Order: sequence, then C-alpha cells, then structure tokens
Amino acid sequence: MRRPVTVAVDVLGGDGAPRAVLDAVRLVQADPQARVLLVGPVDQLPELMAQHRIRPGAVDLMNATECVAMDAHPLQAVRQDAQLEQPRLTVTVAARAVRDGAAEAWVSVGHTGAAVAAAVLAAGRIPNMARPALAVVLPALEQPVVLLDAGAGLDASPQVLAQFAVAGWCYARALGVAEPNVGLLTIGSEPGKGDDVRQEAEQVLAERLRGHGIGFVGPVEGGDVVTGRRAQVVVTDGFTGNVLLKGIEGAVAWSVERISQAYADPEPARRVLREVATGDFAGGMLLGVDATTVIGHGAGSPAQIAACIRLAASAAERGLIPELRARLALTSESS
Amino acid sequence: MRRPVTVAVDVLGGDGAPRAVLDAVRLVQADPQARVLLVGPVDQLPELMAQHRIRPGAVDLMNATECVAMDAHPLQAVRQDAQLEQPRLTVTVAARAVRDGAAEAWVSVGHTGAAVAAAVLAAGRIPNMARPALAVVLPALEQPVVLLDAGAGLDASPQVLAQFAVAGWCYARALGVAEPNVGLLTIGSEPGKGDDVRQEAEQVLAERLRGHGIGFVGPVEGGDVVTGRRAQVVVTDGFTGNVLLKGIEGAVAWSVERISQAYADPEPARRVLREVATGDFAGGMLLGVDATTVIGHGAGSPAQIAACIRLAASAAERGLIPELRARLALTSESS
Repeated sequence: MRRPVTVAVDVLGGDGAPRAVLDAVRLVQADPQARVLLVGPVDQLPELMAQHRIRPGAVDLMNATECVAMDAHPLQAVRQDAQLEQPRLTVTVAARAVRDGAAEAWVSVGHTGAAVAAAVLAAGRIPNMARPALAVVLPALEQPVVLLDAGAGLDASPQVLAQFAVAGWCYARALGVAEPNVGLLTIGSEPGKGDDVRQEAEQVLAERLRGHGIGFVGPVEGGDVVTGRRAQVVVTDGFTGNVLLKGIEGAVAWSVERISQAYADPEPARRVLREVATGDFAGGMLLGVDATTVIGHGAGSPAQIAACIRLAASAAERGLIPELRARLALTSESS
Repeated sequence: MRRPVTVAVDVLGGDGAPRAVLDAVRLVQADPQARVLLVGPVDQLPELMAQHRIRPGAVDLMNATECVAMDAHPLQAVRQDAQLEQPRLTVTVAARAVRDGAAEAWVSVGHTGAAVAAAVLAAGRIPNMARPALAVVLPALEQPVVLLDAGAGLDASPQVLAQFAVAGWCYARALGVAEPNVGLLTIGSEPGKGDDVRQEAEQVLAERLRGHGIGFVGPVEGGDVVTGRRAQVVVTDGFTGNVLLKGIEGAVAWSVERISQAYADPEPARRVLREVATGDFAGGMLLGVDATTVIGHGAGSPAQIAACIRLAASAAERGLIPELRARLALTSESS
C-alpha cells in the first residue's frame, strides 16, 4: 500500500481557528491518502485534539505559537519571523516543514498574503515564475475551469500572465483535464479588446503558448469562466481574479437562496451549494513556489478545510510541482 | 393623464436585430408610460412593423440606415458618422433625437463602445463628469446594488471614481433606495487593501463623499455586490466592473442550471432567471452624458430589451439627469 502524503496544517490561521481547523483534521484523520502534521502550540494541541476527537497518533505535531494578526502588516510580520532563530508563526513553520522534508504539502486558511509570503520565503520560487499565482478551480457547466491569479498578487505584466498560463495549464492537466485550452480574461471576446496590458498579453500569450504546444483561444469574458466552453484555464491579474472569484461565489450563494425560495423544499438547492463549497471551490493552489501550498477561505467550514487538506495531498501525490518545473524549464529554452 | 415619455430605440443594434428589437417594441407598444421612436431604415420599417405586429400609429419613425459593424473600429465609425451632414448610424441619430428634443431617452443593445461614443458626441458630458460610466442594477439579497462602471471605459483614476460614486448614488436614489451607502470595490475588506489606485481612491472618496453628505463604507469585495448588505452603490473601473458583471451573470445562469437538476421540476428555478433577466439585470444606465441613455445586452431577449425601454422611460420621467447635474454642480463648489 502506498504511504500517505504528509500535509502540514496551520492550526491558527482562519476566522474559526483553531476550532474549524481541528474539526477539519478530524474529518480527514482516517484518510489513507493524507497524514496531517498539526502546526500550532504543542503545549495546547493534545488538549485541543481531545476536545475535537482527534485520535492521538493519528497526526504528528510541530510547534508554532503565533498566527499573523489580520490588522498587522502581514508581509512585514512574515519577513521578521523568517529571520528569527525559532520562527513563531504557523505559516513560517508549516512552509519550512515542506522545505525541510517533514511534510510534502501544506495548508493554511489564514491571511492569503501571509501564506504567500511564507511560501516564497521558505521554499523559493520555481525558475521562470516571476511570482506565484493562486489558482482556483471553478465548477463550470461543461468542465472545470482553472482561474488564476485569484489574489496572490495585484497586477501582472503580459510576461507574467504568460507564466501563469503555463502554470494553470499544468494544474488543469493534474486535475484530469486532457487538453486544456487557455483564455485571457478581458472585456469583449473580439481580439484587441481590453486595456493595454491585455492587448499586449494577447500577443505574448499566443506566441509563448504556441511554443509549448498549448491551445490558446484568445480573449474570454467573465461569463466564460462559468461555462468552461471556450477555455479551461483563464488567466488574469490577482486584483481582477479575486474580484471575479468573490463575485461568482456571492452570486452562487445568492442564487441558492433565491431559487430555494421558489420551491417547497429548499434542501436540494442548499445541497448543491454544500457540494460546490466542499469540492471545487474549496481551496486555492499556490502555483510557482517550490512547495505544494493550498490556501483556503478564512471563513471556511470544517468540510471546506478538509477539502483543502485532501487537495494538497492529491497535488503532491500527482507530482504537480515537478511537472511545473519541467514545463517552465522549457520556457527558458524556447525563449 | 400624464403624457408618455418618448424613447428612441436603435432598431439595428444587437445580435438579434432587428427582430428582437421589434419584438420588444411590440411588448411595450401599449404601455401608457413610454412611446417608442423607432430609429432605423424608414423604407423598411412599415413592413417590419407589420411582420412583428406593431400597430401603425403606435410608434413614431426616424430614418437611420446603418449600424456599427462589430468588426469595425466603433469609435472611429461613430466619429466619422457624426461629421456627415446626414448621419447614417442608428446610434448617432437616436442620441441626437434626445439632444434635439424629439425624444427624452434612448436605448441601444448594439455595441457598447459605439453607444457610449454616440451619446458623448451628440449630447456631451455633464459638467464635473470626466467620463461616463455604465451603471447596472444587481438584484442583491437585501436591497438592489448599483455597480458602476460596468464597461463604458477601461480604467479610472481616484478622482473619476469619486465622480462615479456621486453619479451612482443619484441613480440608486432614483431607483428608490432611501439612503444608499457607497463602497469601493477592492480585494479584502480591511482599509488599505488593493492596488495603488484603490488605496488613493479610498482617501479621495472618503473626503469627497463626506462633502456631499453621502455615506461611504470604504472597501468592499466582489461578494458584497451580491448581498447588498454593506453598500448599495459599488464603484470600480470599467474593466473590473465588466468582468465582475459578466461573471455574476454567468454564475447565476450556472446556478439555475445546476440547481434545477436537483429538483423534479426545473421550471421554478428557470422562472427566477427569467425574472432577474427581465428586471434589474436588463440594462445599463449611462451616467454622465446629458441624455438619458440605456445600453442593454447585445444578446438580450425581446423581454429584456422591453425592460430597457421601460427603464429609460422611467429614468427620464424621474428626472435622473437634472438631479445628477445638480448634485455634481455641488462638487465644484465644495472642491
């Protein structure tokens, strides 16, 4: 039997931490695919585990005593922590656990910027990725769509968007999409629409992706992200991607609420929302850092956080990062 | 009895033109609030009206023979047309009908950029609006939300965003929201999140809106647009706003499709989509030009285009533009 993937889990990150995180760990403690390394205050963890019915011996423990405060400047806090002889932040310790081989992947549902910074500082970037992107999987009508960047950064140059495209393509392949096509998010689907960055990016992506043998369908609109008809990988800057992701999440919740009122029994509609929330939507994969990193919703439920842990284990299992490294290495040869 | 508002309608704009537009006109021909001025090729209109069962005498006619081709450069086409002694484009003729008093409002479901350009060239901008914004009304959970700019432009400076905020506030008031609060669309709801434009805009909006006695709640996220809990007016640049709008539309359609499969009878779910599509979502109000202008979906159904005509009539009836002029005039006094 194959040995389970060890996933380091940030116990203190997220709106419902540590309770929601520990409840999530209980949900996965019997999974044969994943073994959890709890990263948190080891003097309190045994008691918390007992409260949350996590079996002693089902998980491993690693000490970290603090989380990034939401009101602090997260990047500064993570940078300072990384310089300490004994880092205190859960994100630093969890990301280093992967770097040092104590885990193969890590998960945080705390501050996104802090998790991104911790991953970059601990594990470094993959060559030919100027910066990491958060890739989310949207449950589209025809086939799942990978949207990136969903908020690891704010803006992106055409060259960076081309790197995101290659990384997103690798992720879609790892998720089982046979021949994903890439689209560039913009307004209007005719060529040449959008601002200067998109117009230049359209040319850069067309050229770079042709070099990789990756299909490029050109500009796509916000609605195409939800059908999956035209493209299965959609690239954009982190500001636009995050706004779009949050809008789609909100619109799905709105629809469930409003449609459920149109039926005598609201339960089937709500079940759809739960399935979506604990499946495709659950976590963002941070692409471009040299450690398998999943960042989930701060307000995620235990089932959603459990889905993040499983996503991290499965990406490590499938060798997403070695594939990404190999594919991006081709970039430097061809350009 | 109050005289109906005359609404000039671009017969040739939109994916389904002229059929979808004429079917829409049939739907409103008996409305006491609106009288339609059909703007299209007058030599063909009587026969088209007969085919679409529009009563002779129920509408007025004005001649325009061409529409903006989707593959042409729309702004250039509209600029050239405006210099002709006899303009040929329906958008030019319809916008001028409002400028010249033959109509009080106009509607196009053709190319957005062409309609925006025609409105600006024919009617001019309202003082203190550097550029127009397309405002759409989203059917949020708690109360409707006005989102702008939904795609009239591409980017927006902090100063322009402040003008959008005032214009959107006037529109929300005209729609019946008593004391709308304004939010600035960004990522993360803590102060100081987002790119340089949003960080500066947060300060500019806080100051300007305070001067107007308009409530400002600061940064809001994509999902807040769909709840309407925090802000009832959400401002952003046209690129982000258009991506978000299209994403929300797609997500609602996705939800209806997926949820309807969870029930034996899909009809109630589909009815929700139809209600939304022919109500709040139907048309964008172009704020900042001195002519009541509604721009609808190119792919809109006759019921959606009819909703655009009614929206235009009701905005003209309520005096949205005089209110906007008065409110923006205060800007120059206070700043």
